[in-house]
Amino acid sequence: MNKKLVLNTLSKIGLIEAALMLLPLLVTVYYHEYRTMRVFLYVILFTAAINAALLFFVKPARDKSLTSRDGIAVAALGWIFLSFFGALPYYVSGEIPHFIDAIFESISGFTTTGASILGDVEALSQGMMFWRCLTHWVGGMGVLVLFVALIPSDKKSSSLQLMRAECPGPTVEKLVPKGRSSAMILYVIYAALTVIMVIFLLIGGMPLFDSCCHAMGTAGTGGFNVKNAGVGFYQSAYLEGVVTVFMILFGVNFNIYYFLIMRKFVGIYKNTELKVYLGTIIASISLIIYNTMSYGIYHSFSKALRYASFQVGSIMTSTGYATADFDRWPELSKTILIVLMFIGACAGSTGGGFKVSRVIILFKTAKRNLRKAMHPKAVNIVKSDDRAIDIETVHSVSCYLIIYIFIFFASLLIISFNNFDFATNFSSVTACLNNIGPGISRVGPMMNYYPLSDLSKTVLSVDMLLGRLECLPLIMLVSPSMWVKKLY
Amino acid sequence: MNKKLVLNTLSKIGLIEAALMLLPLLVTVYYHEYRTMRVFLYVILFTAAINAALLFFVKPARDKSLTSRDGIAVAALGWIFLSFFGALPYYVSGEIPHFIDAIFESISGFTTTGASILGDVEALSQGMMFWRCLTHWVGGMGVLVLFVALIPSDKKSSSLQLMRAECPGPTVEKLVPKGRSSAMILYVIYAALTVIMVIFLLIGGMPLFDSCCHAMGTAGTGGFNVKNAGVGFYQSAYLEGVVTVFMILFGVNFNIYYFLIMRKFVGIYKNTELKVYLGTIIASISLIIYNTMSYGIYHSFSKALRYASFQVGSIMTSTGYATADFDRWPELSKTILIVLMFIGACAGSTGGGFKVSRVIILFKTAKRNLRKAMHPKAVNIVKSDDRAIDIETVHSVSCYLIIYIFIFFASLLIISFNNFDFATNFSSVTACLNNIGPGISRVGPMMNYYPLSDLSKTVLSVDMLLGRLECLPLIMLVSPSMWVKKLY
Repeated sequence: MNKKLVLNTLSKIGLIEAALMLLPLLVTVYYHEYRTMRVFLYVILFTAAINAALLFFVKPARDKSLTSRDGIAVAALGWIFLSFFGALPYYVSGEIPHFIDAIFESISGFTTTGASILGDVEALSQGMMFWRCLTHWVGGMGVLVLFVALIPSDKKSSSLQLMRAECPGPTVEKLVPKGRSSAMILYVIYAALTVIMVIFLLIGGMPLFDSCCHAMGTAGTGGFNVKNAGVGFYQSAYLEGVVTVFMILFGVNFNIYYFLIMRKFVGIYKNTELKVYLGTIIASISLIIYNTMSYGIYHSFSKALRYASFQVGSIMTSTGYATADFDRWPELSKTILIVLMFIGACAGSTGGGFKVSRVIILFKTAKRNLRKAMHPKAVNIVKSDDRAIDIETVHSVSCYLIIYIFIFFASLLIISFNNFDFATNFSSVTACLNNIGPGISRVGPMMNYYPLSDLSKTVLSVDMLLGRLECLPLIMLVSPSMWVKKLY
Repeated sequence: MNKKLVLNTLSKIGLIEAALMLLPLLVTVYYHEYRTMRVFLYVILFTAAINAALLFFVKPARDKSLTSRDGIAVAALGWIFLSFFGALPYYVSGEIPHFIDAIFESISGFTTTGASILGDVEALSQGMMFWRCLTHWVGGMGVLVLFVALIPSDKKSSSLQLMRAECPGPTVEKLVPKGRSSAMILYVIYAALTVIMVIFLLIGGMPLFDSCCHAMGTAGTGGFNVKNAGVGFYQSAYLEGVVTVFMILFGVNFNIYYFLIMRKFVGIYKNTELKVYLGTIIASISLIIYNTMSYGIYHSFSKALRYASFQVGSIMTSTGYATADFDRWPELSKTILIVLMFIGACAGSTGGGFKVSRVIILFKTAKRNLRKAMHPKAVNIVKSDDRAIDIETVHSVSCYLIIYIFIFFASLLIISFNNFDFATNFSSVTACLNNIGPGISRVGPMMNYYPLSDLSKTVLSVDMLLGRLECLPLIMLVSPSMWVKKLY
């Protein structure tokens, strides 16, 4: 690892974060929250000072660019740095007095998990509320992608390594040859969709502040609430419908929108992942409508449709907003939601989970292997979108599954030290590792993560980071050979 | 598929089963249970008549031997046949009046799951009790292995295909060149260990009938109880100790015993699976002792050791006996047991689950892939027991994992129609797919599977068969190309 170059890059990320904090600062000024304003001022100065010092004193060799190993280190350390500085406003202001809780909330924000330790979000100052939702928005598309888009670099390979390390899903492709342009295109589409959503929410009568917060939370598929009752607070089927549609839109691979702009409709039509994603959403909504209505939870079809579609969209895209206490739904509906938590959104979207495309690849691999067991002599290739997927991809998806399962069970064992019920333990790990937010039982949509022990909160924080970075970068960070200067 | 040859083989298996039913018939005679005796007599005559007719009228071509596809068909259909005829005594006698329940109990017996729909086992006649435990014993080592050992065949390839189809684990090897001799060696070791266990139980003062039933249930890692209070009925630390030790012994790969007899101690010493298996058992027992004692469930170390070691041995080997109501243990202990359910026993043992050797292969695959991601240029090979495991094995274990997960989630969704709590649904699928027996909550060790719906019982029955045959044969059975006469 080229430590100087990595530190240099990290310090620039820190400076970007200090700049981002100017936005909540403006909010505090607007709302005359002078106490919170001072907190943000101090934190911004502290963050800027430290990172400027780093940038000034650590000078990497001019001709070096980031290797893939360096990119991974930047991704892993960058997200930890980010979460640390991001937790400072919560902690310094005393709005989250316990440091572990502040870190949990910060990681939950940046990883777009949306799991909260706050029982009463409405007690937060407006500035803090805005910062929470902003972390969702930045974390959703990725802070390294933002870095690549903002910081000009003459080294093409560097930007690519960073973007790859932050979203290592199986179908992340460059849209255009230059990494920086790809990053910019992604952020422009992302920002445009967010603004459109704000407009739709304003039309429905939601206040501007709430609209911005909800749009940022939805765009990042985060899930932090602005009201204790969540989106259900507004009692408006229209607003819930807008949020539902946009949640599902942000769970789509952003390449699709690029294709749409470029009028490459064939690429959209032939996209298997999109079809499976939408098909799963429709099937899940139908089953939950049937199940909740037959148990008498909802008495009219329209009401069942409204709550079921909102919840399915929210869980599958890993947003985690709730308008209904789905913990009171019948078991089948709850189990569908838990299965959706694992499947997750499309690769290349802001959503979390295992990703639809990976599930498709696993399914096809299994099918091919069964066929092979039957007809050992036939030639079998795993195909996706009419293209053969190479054996390396199949292999790396399988390995991701294996690592994922090991992490899952290890976390489950540690969490169960809390001695909460099985549904709580199981769903809290599921919800954090897949960046959803709420689980069921004691971490259900109307509850929060506050009662968990510090040990559990720490494990779940790590799980959130593992989920967002798709395991590899963080695991490699703790590997000794990461820290060796040069290997070959 | 060579239908005639497959049917011919199936009919021989049916005749073996009719012969096996003579044993419970003798028990009924001994205990003067004339009603049950008549039931067994009728069932034996019916089973024998049908299969003799099949054998007589379906004549395969003389020179053909079973292909691998035929072997798989025999395994899948054979186990279904076996379970059907095996359910008849329960159903005809009226001791299990509902047919789905009788089939569930029969499949649970042969697959050595030990999940029961009976609330009061002591109400069974002695003959029926013996038959239940005998199915465990036969199912444990495999009925096709028994078939190969009993029926002389001049076609070497046939016996091999059958043994492979029944236990397709990653390390099943022939002990000696001839399939029939391997099968005989396995059964001799198996029977000898069972007899030794009976003697140990008799020394502890257990009645002969109970000793035989417990020994057969332990040998097959089944778990059907003879008393409502299970092994705890005898209130004897010695007897529980004997059962604990033998459960763990039957969870070991039988090749180890062959090595022991052949004095090939190096093969034992170098066996990674054995080390991991025993290591996991010791670690789990220690953690559960610590956890249960710190929650005040047990007040003395010796008592905690006694119950913890029994339960860990019982669950990890997929036996499913219970001396303590582990559903009342603290969550960590319960979660450890659930994780052990998934890991399972050693490959080549009578135990179920995912198998320790597969977990080791997955772990090493993940480790290798992480190393590869760090050092793309280095050569990496997955090793086990100082031998490199070929990429095909790694691949097929990954695929098994994928299929396993798909089946797991599909079953979980269907089971949740019951609207029982999440812990019940999750653990009942876990317990049946891994051939354990009891789960937690409403299918806990002091409860039974009776309250589940017919749909759930059917799904769980299929899961038990899938678990015992390690998925492949049953899935291939429903594939259309299985039924085509010849493909190439």
